[in-house]
Amino acid sequence: MNTFGTLFRLTTFGESHGPALGSVIDGCPAGVPLTRDMLQAALDRRRPGQSALVTARNEPDTVEILSGVFEDKTLGTPIAAIVRNTNQRSQDYNQLATVDRPGHADAVWRERYKHRDHRGGGRTSGRETLCRVIGGTIAEAYLARDLPSLSTVAYVSQVGELVASVPAPGLTRAMVDAHATRCPDAAVRDEMSRRILAAKEAGDSLGGAIDVRVEGLPVGLGEPIFGKLKALIAQALGSIGAVTGVVWGPPDLLQRIGQPGTQFHAVKDAYGGIQGGLANGEPMQVRAFFKPPATLADHAKGGRHDPCIMPRAVPVLEAMVSLVIADLVQQLNARPHSA
Amino acid sequence: MNTFGTLFRLTTFGESHGPALGSVIDGCPAGVPLTRDMLQAALDRRRPGQSALVTARNEPDTVEILSGVFEDKTLGTPIAAIVRNTNQRSQDYNQLATVDRPGHADAVWRERYKHRDHRGGGRTSGRETLCRVIGGTIAEAYLARDLPSLSTVAYVSQVGELVASVPAPGLTRAMVDAHATRCPDAAVRDEMSRRILAAKEAGDSLGGAIDVRVEGLPVGLGEPIFGKLKALIAQALGSIGAVTGVVWGPPDLLQRIGQPGTQFHAVKDAYGGIQGGLANGEPMQVRAFFKPPATLADHAKGGRHDPCIMPRAVPVLEAMVSLVIADLVQQLNARPHSA
Amino acid sequence: MNTFGTLFRLTTFGESHGPALGSVIDGCPAGVPLTRDMLQAALDRRRPGQSALVTARNEPDTVEILSGVFEDKTLGTPIAAIVRNTNQRSQDYNQLATVDRPGHADAVWRERYKHRDHRGGGRTSGRETLCRVIGGTIAEAYLARDLPSLSTVAYVSQVGELVASVPAPGLTRAMVDAHATRCPDAAVRDEMSRRILAAKEAGDSLGGAIDVRVEGLPVGLGEPIFGKLKALIAQALGSIGAVTGVVWGPPDLLQRIGQPGTQFHAVKDAYGGIQGGLANGEPMQVRAFFKPPATLADHAKGGRHDPCIMPRAVPVLEAMVSLVIADLVQQLNARPHSA
Amino acid sequence: MNTFGTLFRLTTFGESHGPALGSVIDGCPAGVPLTRDMLQAALDRRRPGQSALVTARNEPDTVEILSGVFEDKTLGTPIAAIVRNTNQRSQDYNQLATVDRPGHADAVWRERYKHRDHRGGGRTSGRETLCRVIGGTIAEAYLARDLPSLSTVAYVSQVGELVASVPAPGLTRAMVDAHATRCPDAAVRDEMSRRILAAKEAGDSLGGAIDVRVEGLPVGLGEPIFGKLKALIAQALGSIGAVTGVVWGPPDLLQRIGQPGTQFHAVKDAYGGIQGGLANGEPMQVRAFFKPPATLADHAKGGRHDPCIMPRAVPVLEAMVSLVIADLVQQLNARPHSA
Repeated sequence: MNTFGTLFRLTTFGESHGPALGSVIDGCPAGVPLTRDMLQAALDRRRPGQSALVTARNEPDTVEILSGVFEDKTLGTPIAAIVRNTNQRSQDYNQLATVDRPGHADAVWRERYKHRDHRGGGRTSGRETLCRVIGGTIAEAYLARDLPSLSTVAYVSQVGELVASVPAPGLTRAMVDAHATRCPDAAVRDEMSRRILAAKEAGDSLGGAIDVRVEGLPVGLGEPIFGKLKALIAQALGSIGAVTGVVWGPPDLLQRIGQPGTQFHAVKDAYGGIQGGLANGEPMQVRAFFKPPATLADHAKGGRHDPCIMPRAVPVLEAMVSLVIADLVQQLNARPHSA
Repeated sequence: MNTFGTLFRLTTFGESHGPALGSVIDGCPAGVPLTRDMLQAALDRRRPGQSALVTARNEPDTVEILSGVFEDKTLGTPIAAIVRNTNQRSQDYNQLATVDRPGHADAVWRERYKHRDHRGGGRTSGRETLCRVIGGTIAEAYLARDLPSLSTVAYVSQVGELVASVPAPGLTRAMVDAHATRCPDAAVRDEMSRRILAAKEAGDSLGGAIDVRVEGLPVGLGEPIFGKLKALIAQALGSIGAVTGVVWGPPDLLQRIGQPGTQFHAVKDAYGGIQGGLANGEPMQVRAFFKPPATLADHAKGGRHDPCIMPRAVPVLEAMVSLVIADLVQQLNARPHSA
Repeated sequence: MNTFGTLFRLTTFGESHGPALGSVIDGCPAGVPLTRDMLQAALDRRRPGQSALVTARNEPDTVEILSGVFEDKTLGTPIAAIVRNTNQRSQDYNQLATVDRPGHADAVWRERYKHRDHRGGGRTSGRETLCRVIGGTIAEAYLARDLPSLSTVAYVSQVGELVASVPAPGLTRAMVDAHATRCPDAAVRDEMSRRILAAKEAGDSLGGAIDVRVEGLPVGLGEPIFGKLKALIAQALGSIGAVTGVVWGPPDLLQRIGQPGTQFHAVKDAYGGIQGGLANGEPMQVRAFFKPPATLADHAKGGRHDPCIMPRAVPVLEAMVSLVIADLVQQLNARPHSA
Repeated sequence: MNTFGTLFRLTTFGESHGPALGSVIDGCPAGVPLTRDMLQAALDRRRPGQSALVTARNEPDTVEILSGVFEDKTLGTPIAAIVRNTNQRSQDYNQLATVDRPGHADAVWRERYKHRDHRGGGRTSGRETLCRVIGGTIAEAYLARDLPSLSTVAYVSQVGELVASVPAPGLTRAMVDAHATRCPDAAVRDEMSRRILAAKEAGDSLGGAIDVRVEGLPVGLGEPIFGKLKALIAQALGSIGAVTGVVWGPPDLLQRIGQPGTQFHAVKDAYGGIQGGLANGEPMQVRAFFKPPATLADHAKGGRHDPCIMPRAVPVLEAMVSLVIADLVQQLNARPHSA
């Protein structure tokens, strides 16, 4: 379905070549400072055309708030915001009306839905992730009011075969955004850039990984059994099209998974900030693996696809994690326990 | 929360040292053949004491059906089934009333809930997974009626550093159950056994991985955006306590994640049976990574904990995947599309 | 919350003096014929300024579809549609910034939400019901494809002390719309008109009742226990601001509630089409009672409020009932039962 | 479906002639005092055989708690409780295997579910309401901790043609339970008794009404639009089998519905404690109308059915209202608003 969350809920809509995409956030309390500029700044971090590393499509992605905000504060009512599709160039896609794009989900979608918009990906386009960024930004505005010391930062940790090494404390989004790769490891990021550009030139593509690090979570955040923090994070990140794996724990977790328990548990942070499904007060660390994008040679050459989706996906992962946290914080508020 | 699913829903309850654990399945249609023996056989695959590889606790885990079944067929009403806790030995745990077990979630749970049952893990005990097996078995009974060619088989694919190689087609549960490790790879499984026994002897533990392979999924299964097949599978498996990572795709996916797209997508099955979030008609393949269990030396020596949880977790993963499929099949039924 | 339904789901947003109101429908299958004109025609039945009986506010309520429709058919993706607020005249409301309107929920809302839009009712304005009409019209388009013989018709059955008598079979919306009161009983409707106009003149208001009659429901529609057809209808109609009571059964039900069972059950249709919570194949009949609107003398004199909300509420009730039916039809589809 | 509520959730199961009925409450916080005796006392108020006015079936309805409670306090985990069916006498029903009981939902249920338990009502039996009483009692235990001044009292306000008059303040459950009719109006209750006994003698039945009065609700309780307090109360009461109408407001509301607004709104309490869908701080007052039970002459003569269900339904209505309040209180907790 197109809604995420139980109490702090994001509903999204829109096809890549329809009139508009949009988000409705239900469950944000009243009195949270929120402006159009905050949403626009977040969308600008995700949009195409930011650097040579990503697609040259130049969509301005201008956001408009339709409801839920008055005098720059939330009203406690649903917040709706939309982005109109301006750069549709649907004539590029006319040829696609009768052919499915190899490597894409077109055939599967057609078999299921019978009737589809053949112009681009429609609802399966990565363009839907802008709706997640809108929702996540509102979640962050809310969390900034109620958990001011919370910090959620994602960064590119692997491109192709190149793996970054990023020391834990004090990472900021500004440090991540300082390089077009969104990898904060100065030792590898320039080489990452070169490989992405080479792939672009060759009509090829690269995958890798993004890490998300969250500091300042309330101890006990998460719901037992099926609503465990790690289960909801897995669903949240697993719902992103290109993600093909999610691992909770320190960056070297998969290297150490074969160790006996006495060694495995000997290091601090063995749990990645989660025990028994609940936040344990340590920084939470999660890694999402990304497949290299499927490529359509002629289109890729036209420069309209991303050779490496990850630099633009960083704010999308932050958004999804923030949505999970906002929802769980409200669950925690809902039921004060006593001894 | 303690409910999983939207249409085919499992609600579970019970603490490891309370009177009983149980499951309520809501949304199973009427007329599905279901007997107590079917549930008992499934629980017997999960219970302790099956072999030297797992904990020696000898809980018979006898199941009783309380509702929803009449003359060996479901009624379309909620199916409730319980297992009473008989081997509570709570005196073993009296000493735990005041100390938290290192490596366990006791301290986090206490901070959140204030009041807790100090006898063993309570609700965080792995014993809750028997409720999932009950639910999953009912899901499988339902799917057997409506999708008779569906096959869901999980198997141990890694123990410590040892990685199995399992050719895809034709794997059955009987083949998996034929060895105490539940690894079907004859080349490594005896060595896996030896290492588990050595860990047990040393008061140590081992993690690794379990793979789940599903054949016969309807093309298009899954819901767009947040209800993608892979997102729900991630939540389902990520909700299991010891799981620390979930990867969709062929067994060698993480070895190949660094390849350029032209290579990565060149092999058949590069998608692990999922495209655009929906089943594409190919076998679905998923891997869950398991941390080695936290050990309590003295307890482990007493033989009351599992040195390697994975052989017993195999039916739990099958159950969770079956629950996801049953729910999504009903979503697919709910809305016939037209051209 | 601002979402209604489980499978066929309506999410609404918008304040009466914000930029726009809107609806998102999730769960409508692909291939359903749907055009902007269908939505506009439905909104025109609800909008102000249709006759002397209702408010003179002249809001055109022009609807725009943002997603989910392609070449005049639904895509199976979320359908979003908005109506911009054009006739805001918020200067009329400036005086309200510091005073709560007597008889309105302003004080309660302020106490709960702290921050509110003082310009008119904000989210509590009856204007939000246009979002329900959008959702209900999409539900009807869907039901027209799958249950072509279904008919849902609401009509005004009481205005002040005047009670209509409307014979059951063959009632159509055209017959209802033929008179400005939306009462099909020629014996009382002119007098109803006169009384509404007199109330308007006097700065007063009138309540009464609306009946909804549904023919062609599938036998067995409804879910057991908490999802009974009558329970969901009660929630659906009870969620409309001015509704103060809901009764299922024939129009004379409350007159006959004191009869002994042998008499009460002797008449055909004693059940109003519902038995055991499920549709029994007979026409379903429901009545909703409406309080007279709270009046603000000076505003009422300015002609900007409805002396009698019911003629305009008729399409709103039809919409809510259609949403319930669409949702339950999908529940019925989801699980084929067998003997 | 068989679950009620969003945060404080009741799931029920069980058929009238199966092994057991039961309830699972999810979302009750830890540390709430709760004992088996509290549940048993609540069930004893609902059970058959309490007086000559109700069915002579003598089911002890002994409750057992299976989980969620430790040392007489809740654990914050799901609370499961069951009641075994002991007095099944299913031989009485053997004749029913092939005939549907006139006036009952048997035929509708059979058409929908194909396979059913022909012994008595199965899942449609009024016996399922004991599960609601279990859930409601837990809700009340929770509310007693967090809202100690809250009072929820239901009483019989009409039997057949006899209507009670009950002054508002200070009504207690003890005052209601003091008479077998559960009507606190001394002027009519003895006559009510006589008419119920006469109906019983004649193999006939009587309906009427129950009022529920709630004092001490937090101002602002309820969720906007579809989650209005009155909408959820309507669903909650409308989900009870015999209820055929729900009216919010003072007891004379339907007598005054025809008044012009200036008169209607002139009295205090015109809103029944609800404005804009939210509690306004005044006592909430709701009335539910009950159909006379369908009768099966020979069975009624055997004394196994209730000639008037209402005295036993009083605790069921209190339970449903308490469940709604518990859920909405958690929603209110979840999101602190600011100016």
